[in-house]
Amino acid sequence: MKKRNKKVTAAILVIGNEILSGRTIDKNISFLALWLNNSLGIKVSEVRIVPDIESKIVRNVISLSKTNNYVLTTGGIGPTHDDITAKSISKAFKRKYTYHKEAYDILLKYYGYENFNDPRKKMAKMPSGSKLIYNPSSAAPGFMIKNVICLPGVPSILKSMINNLKKYLVPGLKTYSLTVSAQTIESNIAKGLEKAQRKYKNAVDIGSYPFFRLGKIGVSIVIRSPNKTRLQSCHKTIIKLLNKKKLKIFKGI
Amino acid sequence: MKKRNKKVTAAILVIGNEILSGRTIDKNISFLALWLNNSLGIKVSEVRIVPDIESKIVRNVISLSKTNNYVLTTGGIGPTHDDITAKSISKAFKRKYTYHKEAYDILLKYYGYENFNDPRKKMAKMPSGSKLIYNPSSAAPGFMIKNVICLPGVPSILKSMINNLKKYLVPGLKTYSLTVSAQTIESNIAKGLEKAQRKYKNAVDIGSYPFFRLGKIGVSIVIRSPNKTRLQSCHKTIIKLLNKKKLKIFKGI
Repeated sequence: MKKRNKKVTAAILVIGNEILSGRTIDKNISFLALWLNNSLGIKVSEVRIVPDIESKIVRNVISLSKTNNYVLTTGGIGPTHDDITAKSISKAFKRKYTYHKEAYDILLKYYGYENFNDPRKKMAKMPSGSKLIYNPSSAAPGFMIKNVICLPGVPSILKSMINNLKKYLVPGLKTYSLTVSAQTIESNIAKGLEKAQRKYKNAVDIGSYPFFRLGKIGVSIVIRSPNKTRLQSCHKTIIKLLNKKKLKIFKGI
Repeated sequence: MKKRNKKVTAAILVIGNEILSGRTIDKNISFLALWLNNSLGIKVSEVRIVPDIESKIVRNVISLSKTNNYVLTTGGIGPTHDDITAKSISKAFKRKYTYHKEAYDILLKYYGYENFNDPRKKMAKMPSGSKLIYNPSSAAPGFMIKNVICLPGVPSILKSMINNLKKYLVPGLKTYSLTVSAQTIESNIAKGLEKAQRKYKNAVDIGSYPFFRLGKIGVSIVIRSPNKTRLQSCHKTIIKLLNKKKLKIFKGI
């Protein structure tokens, strides 16, 4: 494992009319964000969801790739006319949009000569110089060009490819988190939390999230830090605050 | 109902570390996108998810409010220290961040004099000149300033407020959609879909989405258009394509 001493960020760019229209609920953002942080210490700094429009993909890829260590795109790398991610990213980086020899061979082997039609061949086209991200589910690989990683939109396929992506990413400083949930409302503990946040300024991020579920009303306090010692110390401060207010603490929420 | 003859767009700006970290899966984007289109003919052009950092909120609100008819923000309007949406938007539009008289009165009535503490009062602070969006669930109102609408992050509360927002939005051209799902794989119908897309260029958007669910493998073809006649005609073209390929069409998927 390489050294993990610096902050590494990624942006996620979801490409897909079906998410923007509301028809499909995205499942990849949460999965990728958790995986990036937990496996690699890479923090997602921003997410954008854009339609299948070349100019919008180009503009967002250029801008996000400048301000983040990595950009992960999801969607738009299939065989149909509305799959324009590879072509758009070729344009963004002024690379030739062309057949990747290894990807072509993988797909040819998977489909066989007789069934290797043009739409399937299209899935081997990508920005010249791309590195492949192998796909153990349905053969068609993802790819990485510069600091941009292109993954499919179908969650099960994306998940199956993620281990093949790991080797291309330089790990960063992992953020640890702890959650404490209590039977209360936010305004009852807001002052105490603010005081705690001031105490752990720049060391621990304290988030407060009300919830109404499983018949319970409560607040989840989520604390995050790359420093385990400071995190534990902040955790004690939060527990002390809740005990002082005589609040019931929920287990496992 | 006002005239619906032009394209009206909205951007959604999700403000929240809990979504970016992956801990919480967003449920508001899909709900808002469907509601905006189906109730008002407003198309979501873009979504961004940003952390609870003032400078990032300010920058994104300014940029999205220039390029869209509306910006809907979710999250960050509660009583705790990490709720910084109202303050950030005051800064973005150079408005005073101050008590809204009516919001103050609503909250005072809801909590009563004795329980109206500072964190609760904070929920009445917003950019000067804001219009209120009433909250039938938990009193604390959302607000609209210029073309930016600020809603809470808790999905059940957001949903309960949405009818009180409707009056502030000018409707646009509604997009109608039809879905046909068939037992096939994308590369089998990609050529036919491309041809159909060329035929209905600029009139109908054709999207192709593979699925693997309920034990079925298939493709959903989603067609969208503001023109019902063209949509129906495109629908016939798609059905003809699927029949020609002798594909099983799934009902109700």
